[in-house]
Amino acid sequence: MKTTYKQILLAAALVGALAFTTTIARAQDPLPSWNDGAAKQAIVNFVKTTTDAASPQFVPPAERIATFDQDGTLWVEHPMYSQVMYCFDRVGALVKAKPELKNVEPFKTVISGDREAIAKLTMKDLEKILAATLTGMSTEQFQAEVKQWLAEAKDPRWKKPYNELTYQPMQEVLRYLRANGFKTYICTGGGQDFVRVYSEQTYGIPPEQVVGTMGGTKYGYDKDGKPILTKEPKLLLNDNNAGKPEGIHLMIGRRPHAAFGNSPGDQQMLEYTKAGDGARLAMLVLHDDAMREYAYGPAQGLPDTKVGTFPQALYDKAQKDGWTVISMKNDWKQTFAFEK
Amino acid sequence: MKTTYKQILLAAALVGALAFTTTIARAQDPLPSWNDGAAKQAIVNFVKTTTDAASPQFVPPAERIATFDQDGTLWVEHPMYSQVMYCFDRVGALVKAKPELKNVEPFKTVISGDREAIAKLTMKDLEKILAATLTGMSTEQFQAEVKQWLAEAKDPRWKKPYNELTYQPMQEVLRYLRANGFKTYICTGGGQDFVRVYSEQTYGIPPEQVVGTMGGTKYGYDKDGKPILTKEPKLLLNDNNAGKPEGIHLMIGRRPHAAFGNSPGDQQMLEYTKAGDGARLAMLVLHDDAMREYAYGPAQGLPDTKVGTFPQALYDKAQKDGWTVISMKNDWKQTFAFEK
Repeated sequence: MKTTYKQILLAAALVGALAFTTTIARAQDPLPSWNDGAAKQAIVNFVKTTTDAASPQFVPPAERIATFDQDGTLWVEHPMYSQVMYCFDRVGALVKAKPELKNVEPFKTVISGDREAIAKLTMKDLEKILAATLTGMSTEQFQAEVKQWLAEAKDPRWKKPYNELTYQPMQEVLRYLRANGFKTYICTGGGQDFVRVYSEQTYGIPPEQVVGTMGGTKYGYDKDGKPILTKEPKLLLNDNNAGKPEGIHLMIGRRPHAAFGNSPGDQQMLEYTKAGDGARLAMLVLHDDAMREYAYGPAQGLPDTKVGTFPQALYDKAQKDGWTVISMKNDWKQTFAFEK
Repeated sequence: MKTTYKQILLAAALVGALAFTTTIARAQDPLPSWNDGAAKQAIVNFVKTTTDAASPQFVPPAERIATFDQDGTLWVEHPMYSQVMYCFDRVGALVKAKPELKNVEPFKTVISGDREAIAKLTMKDLEKILAATLTGMSTEQFQAEVKQWLAEAKDPRWKKPYNELTYQPMQEVLRYLRANGFKTYICTGGGQDFVRVYSEQTYGIPPEQVVGTMGGTKYGYDKDGKPILTKEPKLLLNDNNAGKPEGIHLMIGRRPHAAFGNSPGDQQMLEYTKAGDGARLAMLVLHDDAMREYAYGPAQGLPDTKVGTFPQALYDKAQKDGWTVISMKNDWKQTFAFEK
């Protein structure tokens, strides 16, 4: 059969109508993994009110900044922050390269694998492990080491690579905000250089939009005279608590219009965000879903744990200051992309 | 005469053809203020080779980073860096607010207006003036103060606002790179917060793309309990010399593909840029045009001056390492937008 011009037009119209219907469906629900409720509504209302040019709370595209804590907000932080897992895992390679460390504490304890002894390591021991595994190499060598670890390491519960353990509903929020002209940033207590290695692939966030705990580097030359930057054990900024707004000012120079966190380390970032003029969104992820993820608090009577926390005082502050609490159990239809 | 449908179509076709011709002309010369020569050719070749998907030196859009020194590279740095002019100008307001400083050095000398005495101020005096005028206030108050100064202050030679003294040919390079998917950054020895106030308006570069000398801020609350960030007299990074690649790593986390400077303070940034794989562009602006701007060196026998410098050693390094020197006198048709 010879295709007529009219048939082509008809087909084009059908395809157009189909695309239009899909667009409408997407426009109707940019957050399909979210149950209807106050949390979802707060996000949708915020986007509508800040992007509608007729709205008195319209925000020009250049000022649309949203910041996200990472551990416990964008991905799982239990049983231990991934970066700490990385540092412990790296001790093996470190001792292989420098066998003289085999009998030196705290490295000796770490390679013994004795969980009870490892759990008793002090903060000072941990600092030694962090310094030995996160500094002393070139920035490029560090990137390669983290990349390799990420490709091999698996979370102990789900037996999946760490960057598959990101929350599907939060990925939707990232995409929804970006589709509406927001620049999305990570603002993490984790190492800035560490998170940058996988932020683009995992969250669609480029390295220059990662604000994290910052260490100094030292410019110099390798044995062939080629310029290198060496990671130094020098803390420039601890991107936790008051360090979060300070880090945001340093790296972005603008106050966010939206901020997402899950622990007291995020309180100042949320306060700072909410204190700006016009529409501001401040949200806290509450881990109350022991079945699909973890439940810890102790807000709302959830168990207190060593890693991550959500004290009742933070919950109360959220209520008082108009922050929205996201219940992982009630607000999320699905937690991970790999769930059926 | 009644306008017919055909006449409208004809007019539309003519307008279309005209727009098309203009587009072609622009596409043919994205750098109209540049004379033909090695410098212009280096820029055009770099853009072509890094953006042509068929080129072996193609650079994916996400990695297209270009960094620009500011003083002496994007705008005039003589007779004194604008930020130093700002600090001296602010001393008057400072003494008005704190009259007890009137008889305290070095403020006493500055408000005396005695140029000879001011020229003799030591580096330590200058540091005191910088600390007093750049720190101690909220980030928002500082922004307002710089904004007001910029609206009023004038360059002593041209009697124009400082942000009109940007080099037209460099503005064309910024726009040309951005039109080809490059993210343009300032990488300045000047204060990061200072330059951020006017970078968008002056260069089309948003505050988050300004890398500069970084001071710490301190998060706290004002008398009404509202969160504020106060600028502290604490140096986090001196964004000069080795500090430039260190600052670039801290703020961007990627190595630039193109870098532009004009003094030894930019040498490490250019080295670091050029040491990357593939096509890399390193350029130095030589101030050899006493008539239209200034001539200072002492490269090529130009006079040595207190502010800004271009020693013969830097010129020789540029030749040796394949950096391109831009002669303001020979490579630029026009220096400022206000020139006829």
